[in-house]
Amino acid sequence: MNRQVFSKKIDVASLKLPFILESGFTFESAPVVYETYGNLSESRDNVILVLHGLNAGSHGASHDERDVSGWWEPMIGSGKALDTDRYFVLIPNGLGSCFGTLGPLTINPVTGQKYGADFPQITVRDMIHLTRRLLTALGISAPSAVIGGSLGGMQALEWAVSFPEDGADVIGIVAPERASAQSIGFNHIMKQAVENDPNWQGGYYEENQSPEKGLALARAVGMMTYQTAESAEQKFARRRREGQWEMGNYLDHQGVKFALRFDANSYLRLLGAMDSHDLTRGRAEYPKELAGKKGRIFLIGDDSDLLYGISNQKELAEKWGEAGADARWHDLDTFYGHDSFLVDFPKLSAVIRDFMEEKGSR
Amino acid sequence: MNRQVFSKKIDVASLKLPFILESGFTFESAPVVYETYGNLSESRDNVILVLHGLNAGSHGASHDERDVSGWWEPMIGSGKALDTDRYFVLIPNGLGSCFGTLGPLTINPVTGQKYGADFPQITVRDMIHLTRRLLTALGISAPSAVIGGSLGGMQALEWAVSFPEDGADVIGIVAPERASAQSIGFNHIMKQAVENDPNWQGGYYEENQSPEKGLALARAVGMMTYQTAESAEQKFARRRREGQWEMGNYLDHQGVKFALRFDANSYLRLLGAMDSHDLTRGRAEYPKELAGKKGRIFLIGDDSDLLYGISNQKELAEKWGEAGADARWHDLDTFYGHDSFLVDFPKLSAVIRDFMEEKGSR
Repeated sequence: MNRQVFSKKIDVASLKLPFILESGFTFESAPVVYETYGNLSESRDNVILVLHGLNAGSHGASHDERDVSGWWEPMIGSGKALDTDRYFVLIPNGLGSCFGTLGPLTINPVTGQKYGADFPQITVRDMIHLTRRLLTALGISAPSAVIGGSLGGMQALEWAVSFPEDGADVIGIVAPERASAQSIGFNHIMKQAVENDPNWQGGYYEENQSPEKGLALARAVGMMTYQTAESAEQKFARRRREGQWEMGNYLDHQGVKFALRFDANSYLRLLGAMDSHDLTRGRAEYPKELAGKKGRIFLIGDDSDLLYGISNQKELAEKWGEAGADARWHDLDTFYGHDSFLVDFPKLSAVIRDFMEEKGSR
Repeated sequence: MNRQVFSKKIDVASLKLPFILESGFTFESAPVVYETYGNLSESRDNVILVLHGLNAGSHGASHDERDVSGWWEPMIGSGKALDTDRYFVLIPNGLGSCFGTLGPLTINPVTGQKYGADFPQITVRDMIHLTRRLLTALGISAPSAVIGGSLGGMQALEWAVSFPEDGADVIGIVAPERASAQSIGFNHIMKQAVENDPNWQGGYYEENQSPEKGLALARAVGMMTYQTAESAEQKFARRRREGQWEMGNYLDHQGVKFALRFDANSYLRLLGAMDSHDLTRGRAEYPKELAGKKGRIFLIGDDSDLLYGISNQKELAEKWGEAGADARWHDLDTFYGHDSFLVDFPKLSAVIRDFMEEKGSR
């Protein structure tokens, strides 16, 4: 994720066109890091925009044989579901993240220091508006498809409602219409785990004294909500090693690994953005926006998802269908839970490939 | 829970008959606190043994109008599912807990200090053996029924396998044959939340400087696993108060309340006991023990239970039935998840009342 060889960086804000959050907070500089796969067509109409989840970045797939794998490696490439022979796959690192795009690790041009704890709370809408700005900067008027899972799926759904006129097909995976109380509760615990760490210091921690233990614990909480009882049982059962449960060892290991690569302020801002996710917020006419939606909508989920079971996708697709959109849903029928979009690639590839091919044949 | 007015205390170990854990750790004094409801019959054969979950104690119900409510108030009393007109309901505080029974808060007679962090790890089998000792001390050869939910349910199931000859009906609610990787994972996080607290001090904390923040966070994690997305949504949805999510406020409030009444060392020992729960452990012939089981077995669960969905109860009842036991299962058909046995009293009362009445009519 940290290899910058193939990633590009562009500043999409300026004094003349600042980037303004929903809250009114204004950035006069807004760097966006992104990676691309495949070739942009002359008419710039073959863009698949991939929006990543909470923990990932712009490195969705390897760029050549020497490159490291990306978080959606089996999905992106020649002949794959997101076929780079045909499409130009664009993956920006999201607003608020810590892998190069505008976020708490960005240098505040006013102070010359990182924003850190002073970085404002963002929303999912802010996230897609920055991404929209990136497209404009690249001369792309509209993507052909927008796709993402979890927090990336929330952004995809928000894209559908915010930009119904742009004609993009929208694929939202394990994402809901709005964040649930349950998700808010788990996110609250994750924040609390970070804030309980004595190194937290209200977010004003030093780089070499960051709240790693708290962040590792937060990550472990997250991981438990992304998997299922069944998938955990299959992987770990009641196995022990040196007197410790392998389930616990795994959580510790993953937590520490995460804490070393992720920034705590970023994490809290992204959790806050998830909490804010609510397609109905401030939209008196919702879901009428969808009546004019060009492009298809495809909501994918699974009932093993602890956070957003298939009823979320089903009910939303039906609601949007009634509002006039071409909306459908699909039950992935897996047992990997919320993480299915990062794990069950055979099933996900097949269903997305079918959807994309239907597009091609229209 | 802390009102001792109606609770009794008895020491069930002595130099002549020490209480010995599975690990070999030996106690020469083993206090057990318990409360009783109804009257013991002359032949001492009308005992319902109620085993509490992780957080509760011996105060299952109020003893008169001036008394405070107990954690199973709607279940225990005259004319209720556990009918005190007929049965003698006995509720011991469990081994390892912090409400009077042998546990980390017990004074070690050798040192004159609390056991604290030196209290050994216990198992569910240790828990029921101490309770068995209590029955003996009270002159009760066998209970008529044993009932419990969650950790109490694990004990009930362990009772069925450990003492198949005693003829007790066993009712286990939201309890599994063995602790799952998922449950071990969440418990691991709960322990880690406590151990991350700088006040933890390896368990050697001072009473006035205990790891309250960590314990509160652990309790919040637990609560999230006991409820469901649906029950959380019904209670909190996306409501905010003073800029905070009510879901988060509730977790904080419950966490602090819990941390003030519960002991951190106790909590960790009880989580460890849950992790150890495995009816198959060290039993080469299991489930043949059940072939000779006198008394009926009734396993109650619900598919909304994040930790131990109904397939746990169904499969175990079928397995035990095949082994020769009179075992049945029931789907509570609720949406309260693991907490259903502490919340959905109308449904639980009805089904347990039916089961108990069938007993009476035999």
